[in-house]
Amino acid sequence: MKKGKTKYSSSYGEINLREKLAKIHGVSADNVVITAGSKWGVFATMYLLLKGGGNVIVPTPYWTAYDLTAKSLGAQTKLLRTEFDSRWRIDLEKLEKIIDKETRMIILNNPNNPTSKVIDPNVLEGIVGIANDKHVPILSDEVYSTISFVKTKSILEYEGNHILSNGFSKTFTMTGWRLGYIIAEKELIDRITRLNQITINNVPVFIQEAGLKALELQKQLSTRIKEEYQERAKMASEILKTACEFTEPEAPFYIFPRKRGLDSEEFTLNLLDQGVAVAPGTAFGDYREHFRVSLTAPREQIKAGLNKICEALG
Amino acid sequence: MKKGKTKYSSSYGEINLREKLAKIHGVSADNVVITAGSKWGVFATMYLLLKGGGNVIVPTPYWTAYDLTAKSLGAQTKLLRTEFDSRWRIDLEKLEKIIDKETRMIILNNPNNPTSKVIDPNVLEGIVGIANDKHVPILSDEVYSTISFVKTKSILEYEGNHILSNGFSKTFTMTGWRLGYIIAEKELIDRITRLNQITINNVPVFIQEAGLKALELQKQLSTRIKEEYQERAKMASEILKTACEFTEPEAPFYIFPRKRGLDSEEFTLNLLDQGVAVAPGTAFGDYREHFRVSLTAPREQIKAGLNKICEALG
Repeated sequence: MKKGKTKYSSSYGEINLREKLAKIHGVSADNVVITAGSKWGVFATMYLLLKGGGNVIVPTPYWTAYDLTAKSLGAQTKLLRTEFDSRWRIDLEKLEKIIDKETRMIILNNPNNPTSKVIDPNVLEGIVGIANDKHVPILSDEVYSTISFVKTKSILEYEGNHILSNGFSKTFTMTGWRLGYIIAEKELIDRITRLNQITINNVPVFIQEAGLKALELQKQLSTRIKEEYQERAKMASEILKTACEFTEPEAPFYIFPRKRGLDSEEFTLNLLDQGVAVAPGTAFGDYREHFRVSLTAPREQIKAGLNKICEALG
Repeated sequence: MKKGKTKYSSSYGEINLREKLAKIHGVSADNVVITAGSKWGVFATMYLLLKGGGNVIVPTPYWTAYDLTAKSLGAQTKLLRTEFDSRWRIDLEKLEKIIDKETRMIILNNPNNPTSKVIDPNVLEGIVGIANDKHVPILSDEVYSTISFVKTKSILEYEGNHILSNGFSKTFTMTGWRLGYIIAEKELIDRITRLNQITINNVPVFIQEAGLKALELQKQLSTRIKEEYQERAKMASEILKTACEFTEPEAPFYIFPRKRGLDSEEFTLNLLDQGVAVAPGTAFGDYREHFRVSLTAPREQIKAGLNKICEALG
């Protein structure tokens, strides 16, 4: 800021940041546009692909913003249910059947919020194969991937003209800086840039510089964040497994347990009275027996909260 | 930033900034939402009012983004031409005739880019009267108003449920900070906030704090900026009047001269070869004989540029 980097700037984003991201992802800077948070990247992509209707396929449990955005754009969301009992695996046959002539895109969230599950590379290959056959682009929201606990394959490692959305909020705990990016074929990058020109114009340059600095320190920072969250996840799993069932988290932040017969909305409200905030499974689709635990608080707070959750589960 | 004001925050904006703006404009904080630049405020409002079609009335000469946004949203722009010869006055009869059943909004830019003309209060009263009769909301983009050279009446001083868009770029030369706001009835503010939740989420809190600080210093800062621009405008008028005709600027930044018989696109390209950048009149509608001079460069640079312009005009 003190250097006066507070003027209008390119709606593509700063070239040094785009080049750094291009190098990390093995693409050209032409394939990168900087967005005001990854949410803006997701919205901009959906806006351009779903304008005038059509439908988008979203596996559940899902991040609500995908569906809210589709609704806002006048498009239909076709939900593709995955189940705890099959370890949240996406069913390729179901996917193939659900795609129709009006399908304009598929959205994957890999690793997933709320399950913290990473898509198996073979399943992902299957999804990409179907998408390519049907000429449907995939928007892969990989905002949790850099700090996932298991190797997470990016959509960019597969054939086809697919779209990566990522951001700095999770990897670097830079939530309030509002910095993200989209990687895609140049034509879509140009269209997002033209949309930026009539909306956000550009992310403040001093914020992009902070992002560049964060990327230079990525290895140190992300290793530290990942280790901290692995410890938290281990501790949380130990406590929770006495009271409910869940798939082991493969990424930081969330666990999405199930308790048979639970009414998660009532459960959530009762817990709130005790000062513990969890999200009901119904906020992520039709998952009334589930609830989402977030591990973003300090360790001692999480521990106290988890003990209250176990008590409440009985 | 050092105080850690870098987390997710309210999609309405920070309450202290909203309260300060509410006080300045004589409304309640419920009527204020903070936007990522005034461009985002304009886009968000147009998105919500024009979704699914309809038309928007825009007087010309106009800022291109209004038309590009309408097109992007699948809405039609109905241009309402104003003329240099009638000092850019909006013709109320024409306005009344051009409104039809599909008209969803009127956009005013007061003071105007590129003419730097302020709408006469009586004309504005007439426009509001027609809009109220026909139940069409006005979006009044007043981003140049705080530093205009003549008293500029705000849309908020008139009857009816109209919408004010404003920003910090012009008043405080904070172009690259991306900070603006919308003032409107609470229902629209809530809708814009819900749109913020699925798009930009929030303007970084540390940027909103800078905006609050700027407002506290508004009187000093805006007086200084206004005085500097009045000097520049005076100097520019003196030079330009020897070679072309124009209405005296009533706001900073722009002059929109006419030269009979000019092909402004060719003129613009030739000037560029001499290192002088002006915008052709055709960038603001059907104004081939006009060009827009910007006064944002340092005084000596402007002077040198203006002399070259006069030479080129012959």
